[in-house]
Amino acid sequence: MHSFKDLTNHFSERFNTTHFPEFPISLYEPCNYFLTLGGKRIRPVLCLMGNELFDNIHEDAYNAATAIELFHNFSLIHDDIMDAAPLRRGMQTIHTKYNNNTAILSGDVMLIRCYDYINKITPKYLPKVLHLFNKTAREVCEGQQLDMDFENKQNVSLDEYINMISLKTSVLIASSLEIGAVLGGAGEGNCKHIYEFGRNLGIAFQIQDDYLDAFGTAEKFGKDIGGDIKQNKKTFLMLHILANANEKQKEEINYLIQNNPSDKVTRMLDIYKACNVDDWAKELKDKYLQTAYHHLEEIAVLSSRKQALKELAEFLVAREY
Amino acid sequence: MHSFKDLTNHFSERFNTTHFPEFPISLYEPCNYFLTLGGKRIRPVLCLMGNELFDNIHEDAYNAATAIELFHNFSLIHDDIMDAAPLRRGMQTIHTKYNNNTAILSGDVMLIRCYDYINKITPKYLPKVLHLFNKTAREVCEGQQLDMDFENKQNVSLDEYINMISLKTSVLIASSLEIGAVLGGAGEGNCKHIYEFGRNLGIAFQIQDDYLDAFGTAEKFGKDIGGDIKQNKKTFLMLHILANANEKQKEEINYLIQNNPSDKVTRMLDIYKACNVDDWAKELKDKYLQTAYHHLEEIAVLSSRKQALKELAEFLVAREY
Repeated sequence: MHSFKDLTNHFSERFNTTHFPEFPISLYEPCNYFLTLGGKRIRPVLCLMGNELFDNIHEDAYNAATAIELFHNFSLIHDDIMDAAPLRRGMQTIHTKYNNNTAILSGDVMLIRCYDYINKITPKYLPKVLHLFNKTAREVCEGQQLDMDFENKQNVSLDEYINMISLKTSVLIASSLEIGAVLGGAGEGNCKHIYEFGRNLGIAFQIQDDYLDAFGTAEKFGKDIGGDIKQNKKTFLMLHILANANEKQKEEINYLIQNNPSDKVTRMLDIYKACNVDDWAKELKDKYLQTAYHHLEEIAVLSSRKQALKELAEFLVAREY
Repeated sequence: MHSFKDLTNHFSERFNTTHFPEFPISLYEPCNYFLTLGGKRIRPVLCLMGNELFDNIHEDAYNAATAIELFHNFSLIHDDIMDAAPLRRGMQTIHTKYNNNTAILSGDVMLIRCYDYINKITPKYLPKVLHLFNKTAREVCEGQQLDMDFENKQNVSLDEYINMISLKTSVLIASSLEIGAVLGGAGEGNCKHIYEFGRNLGIAFQIQDDYLDAFGTAEKFGKDIGGDIKQNKKTFLMLHILANANEKQKEEINYLIQNNPSDKVTRMLDIYKACNVDDWAKELKDKYLQTAYHHLEEIAVLSSRKQALKELAEFLVAREY
């Protein structure tokens, strides 16, 4: 059994190669550029961990993991266009460094490339993995669409938000684990539990992300604190206070959202604290984390094999960055 | 054996259904809208014809044909954004009717949906068809990239142009036929010949398209004559006269391209005629058509089974619209 760190190193070593032909350079150079921006490689490593939970890591799992990481990068390239984001990991996004058309087409070809790696999987597993991969890919698009829809929607309920987050980020985490499990020969029941472990962990992870944006420390988090507040982003925290603030606080919130004063972040955080949104967020995160652990418990393999996943879950959700 | 027309009707009946879930409406409604714009459905029907060349049409061929038509529509949705085209078949393009972000994401989800249909194919054929489909999808992206690159490139040779056209349009025609053939149990040699039949036919088809834009009659062609000339598009004809015009004609061409006078089309057509570009285009088209027929001849099935494909080829390349 390997630790998350070990597997990250193994995967990165294999992933840091050329995934594209040389020509046309104008199409493939942007793809290669984007992949050099790096990333934590969480999803592909989860695929390897899902695989190792049931068996020694198989070549199939590396191919699936590669497809998953390429898919994640494809979605970032297109999301960056849609969000008009100038930077990704401190570097220029493709549409900024090149142009929108290049970013669209590089994303397209990266998505297509995923299926070459899927196609390397042992034929007996291919239909099942292709089905799972495709279902997840479609859901990630649905999540992105809902996220954009919510920007212009007045009232977004917590349930709607959780559904959006689940689609946009959690299902890929869940599916990465399940694809690894399928390739390790896991049965239907175990597959269901590892998927739900991942899905709930993903939601807890996002709550932690929203929490850190408001209550983290800039040095550790690596981003400006209050970025979500500045952008009026609907987050777990914001939705909670919109539903629970008193009339006076609601007036203040509306004022801050509409007028963007220079002390907006501090004033919004005061309301967050007055509403105890930090405690609420911790409890909510804990609820999803406990559900995740429950599903991990239910997987019928030796408890010792689950240790690495348990440690990773704790790390992801307790992290301060 | 069925005619092209019969198979178009069969395919259209099956294709005119819902290919997407209902929610989120904001994501899937644009996909459904775009598919209602119609189209000649040439590529999926070629897949059925490729299949019927070797066997009775199998359910697998319908699934592959559906994936191919969805892929073609995905590529149109994204190309329309890149070309900033307001209309497609006389109706608003997705990015015009909705917005760019919706067009990007609808295209993405349509591309992903292709692979659901591919995944319905009998497992023994799946890896081969997925490989062919994916290789072609990548090449279509490469063709689109080269087409965009050529807009800003001073000297494009005829060979470079043919390579671009081959990637952008011919390989999908070729691959549609070959996928059908594979699913009909065709061997490697026959697959190679049907692919080359399609690829050469596709190039002849594009030459005819460029020819009609200059020398067709508006009523039959259904588009303005000289549209390519107005847009300074590099076409087979334009590349030929740029390489073969005399100094005086070249001066005139450069003047027309740079100044866009109101009589640009007439004056450019005068040069086209003086250079006999119409005869040259007919000869070039004939060369590719003969190569296509040669490969059709080489396919080892009863000659009578090839009749429908021969008729279709004649129709596509002799058409005046």
